[in-house]
Amino acid sequence: MDDTGEDDLLPRLHASLLEGLPAEALLTDPGVTASYATDMAAFCAAGTPAAVALPRTVEQVQHVLRTATALRVPVVPQGARTGLSGAANASDGCILLSLVKMDRILEINTVDRTAVVEPGVVNAVLSRAVADRGLFYPPDPSSWEQCTIGGNIGTGSGGLCCVKYGVTAEYVLGLDVVLADGRLLRTGRRTAKGVAGYDLTRLFVGSEGSLGVVVGAVLALRPAPPRQLALAAEFPSAAAACAAVCAVMEAGLTPSLLELMDRTTVRAVNALGRGGPPCSSGAESLGEGLPETTEALLLAAFDTPHAPEELAAVGELCRAAGATAVVPAEDEAESEMLLKARRMSLTALDALRPATMIDDVCVPRSRLAEMLDGTAAIARAYDLLIGVCAHAGDGNTHPVVCFDPADEDETRRARESFDEIMALGLSLGGTITGEHGVGVLKKEWLARELGPVGLEMQRAVKRAFDPLGLLNPGKLF
Amino acid sequence: MDDTGEDDLLPRLHASLLEGLPAEALLTDPGVTASYATDMAAFCAAGTPAAVALPRTVEQVQHVLRTATALRVPVVPQGARTGLSGAANASDGCILLSLVKMDRILEINTVDRTAVVEPGVVNAVLSRAVADRGLFYPPDPSSWEQCTIGGNIGTGSGGLCCVKYGVTAEYVLGLDVVLADGRLLRTGRRTAKGVAGYDLTRLFVGSEGSLGVVVGAVLALRPAPPRQLALAAEFPSAAAACAAVCAVMEAGLTPSLLELMDRTTVRAVNALGRGGPPCSSGAESLGEGLPETTEALLLAAFDTPHAPEELAAVGELCRAAGATAVVPAEDEAESEMLLKARRMSLTALDALRPATMIDDVCVPRSRLAEMLDGTAAIARAYDLLIGVCAHAGDGNTHPVVCFDPADEDETRRARESFDEIMALGLSLGGTITGEHGVGVLKKEWLARELGPVGLEMQRAVKRAFDPLGLLNPGKLF
Repeated sequence: MDDTGEDDLLPRLHASLLEGLPAEALLTDPGVTASYATDMAAFCAAGTPAAVALPRTVEQVQHVLRTATALRVPVVPQGARTGLSGAANASDGCILLSLVKMDRILEINTVDRTAVVEPGVVNAVLSRAVADRGLFYPPDPSSWEQCTIGGNIGTGSGGLCCVKYGVTAEYVLGLDVVLADGRLLRTGRRTAKGVAGYDLTRLFVGSEGSLGVVVGAVLALRPAPPRQLALAAEFPSAAAACAAVCAVMEAGLTPSLLELMDRTTVRAVNALGRGGPPCSSGAESLGEGLPETTEALLLAAFDTPHAPEELAAVGELCRAAGATAVVPAEDEAESEMLLKARRMSLTALDALRPATMIDDVCVPRSRLAEMLDGTAAIARAYDLLIGVCAHAGDGNTHPVVCFDPADEDETRRARESFDEIMALGLSLGGTITGEHGVGVLKKEWLARELGPVGLEMQRAVKRAFDPLGLLNPGKLF
Repeated sequence: MDDTGEDDLLPRLHASLLEGLPAEALLTDPGVTASYATDMAAFCAAGTPAAVALPRTVEQVQHVLRTATALRVPVVPQGARTGLSGAANASDGCILLSLVKMDRILEINTVDRTAVVEPGVVNAVLSRAVADRGLFYPPDPSSWEQCTIGGNIGTGSGGLCCVKYGVTAEYVLGLDVVLADGRLLRTGRRTAKGVAGYDLTRLFVGSEGSLGVVVGAVLALRPAPPRQLALAAEFPSAAAACAAVCAVMEAGLTPSLLELMDRTTVRAVNALGRGGPPCSSGAESLGEGLPETTEALLLAAFDTPHAPEELAAVGELCRAAGATAVVPAEDEAESEMLLKARRMSLTALDALRPATMIDDVCVPRSRLAEMLDGTAAIARAYDLLIGVCAHAGDGNTHPVVCFDPADEDETRRARESFDEIMALGLSLGGTITGEHGVGVLKKEWLARELGPVGLEMQRAVKRAFDPLGLLNPGKLF
């Protein structure tokens, strides 16, 4: 902070910001700015912002950062605030720098298979725009209808597609970044390959706005694949479903989606769908909803010209692993119906109890059964409802701890179980976060995962880019 | 350097190194150490090393780095020294730290599709070992029978497979790195996904040994695809061949290989093969060798179950772009024969004149025709023989400038043309290096490509990891 008084700083900050921002790009009313103070994470403290800036140009972002540096005011970059780790939460006295107004798709090139975008473009808007040109932008986080590409880059988002197509990081070729002091850095390339110097592009992906502010991105695209064809398989245990996952991957198959829903999740989806069941048509043995007798439901899909043969192979592997029913979708519409049930999972689990905490532990897929059995044991030990949906092909589980914040004891147990789940993941050779990031939610756990040397080198990188510590302070570590 | 005299330093260094290295792991005879002083780049100065260390364990590497830090002696990490930019060249008084004795494959996991390796494992050894388990390690630089995984990671190597499978960076999940001061840093993960903190793994890939010494790697593998089936197409101009490349990519096809050889390269391959022609069997219209009347030869391959249909589609697009002949291979053996001609290109061009400089400019593939025509114009302007083979699907060209170092004027023209080619690449939105790296060869050009802010941030990262500047000094920038 500046060495003049706090009382003086706020009007000076607002006046300085307005020297380079139009009036409509600056929000200062405390009632309004407070509404920008958090993302969608539970249990994450947020401070009181000094202002919200909504720039429309790179120059305006540079002005905000120059002002912040001059006055030593922290800056918290934000997209759609759909994050699940508190990375976009305000710190006291910060400028919330929202990039949502910089939402133009600047270029789509069908030969180079690239798009050039501003950070505020909504994932679904980009996905549809490139689909219209026969192309495909794979990263598909659950919030894809709301979340922005800038937020996806900041978080290193994943989604359902990752088992075949990988995460956001694989699709970012180059970035324009405004540094803490307002200088513009261009990283990476527009070409398919390039090794000119250190890969700063990838350093920014997943950096949660703590190294610089992404104001532009060159993204790699793929040719649009055929629509995917899906299959559902019911298992008498999570372990049997995980054995099927391992068998599928070991057989050399490459599904475009390989998802698991545990019994709690299946029932939650049915409960949400009642009065208009989520899977009221489609695969027959799934009846009026999902099969509530199952202990684990596996969904697999392929988006290749020979998907039916590949699904048949998966079906056989599922049966060999103990599946009690294997139901291939007859067509794309039935496939969509199956996948819709999976996409509803988080919302459905959310509806079970007044609040939820969503975890994001990723383990080697060969350890997935241990992760699921261990999570079930934790739920029993803490007497909690914990539903798990998982990007099973990636070993990425989302245990959802359901609880009532009004119940103090249950809340304590919820937090403790959340920690136990991360400890379990680490003990299985996994990571505390596959795709949601660290933010404030998992700071302590990041330190545990990285160890002292790892943490020290992360901090050294942070200092190299942000020596004054103004960018998203208090996040990550 | 230490403040004691130079004369004193050498015996002290050797003695200190021997405190943690067995005698056979340290070479000090100047005649022997000099033989380790360079990689395969032309025109790259090398200094006189103080010693060559050949450790077999992580602890030994740590000892070398601790000793280097204590005595302020520079360290140059080395693999098989097949690099083409001088990145592994000795600096005066350095320890050459060769990792070739750390050559164990520690683990191959068919469910997780991962391998854990030491840095000295030869690319081809790993590729064959994983192939035996039904898996595939895609990166395939031309030197794959010699080059090491550690070297591939240091350089960010590519190869023929990149158009479908990407570069080395996509296959490195986690690293063990000995830092300049001897501490061991573990980066990344063993899981399919992970966003726990900054992506330091990718920062090390392509860092040319200037940030730390890679002593272990977790690599991602893929299921082994079907053997690829290839096609050759002859074009009356490079521009027509490039138009076909663009058409193939725009059509949404994903070849496993899409390579271009210009007329000079085709003739060089034939010349090399005479008396035992490289393509003496195989596709008939290629006769006893490659077709010398062609101006550009395009090779495409697919490694899918429906490769023949995809090759047929490529064939049609080639004809539409003006191909004078389209020759699909009848089987895998014929395909291999075609690809062998491509793999011989660099050797063949090397044989044309006493020396060559191999460039590595990558442009957006939509600009490939301009790159090739521009390179031909440079060859004419400088009155030089410049053959081009290209990973055309990636826009990655390897113009090979052929010259006689004994001819002073030709040598000057060779160097100038080399610079002109990089300038052309940058003017087309490209990069000075797609896969060979910067080393000492392209230092000045890296600065031009990155610009002052980019260069400054690269240096800031370097300082964060190597504050004393001991790791591979004088490389990159």
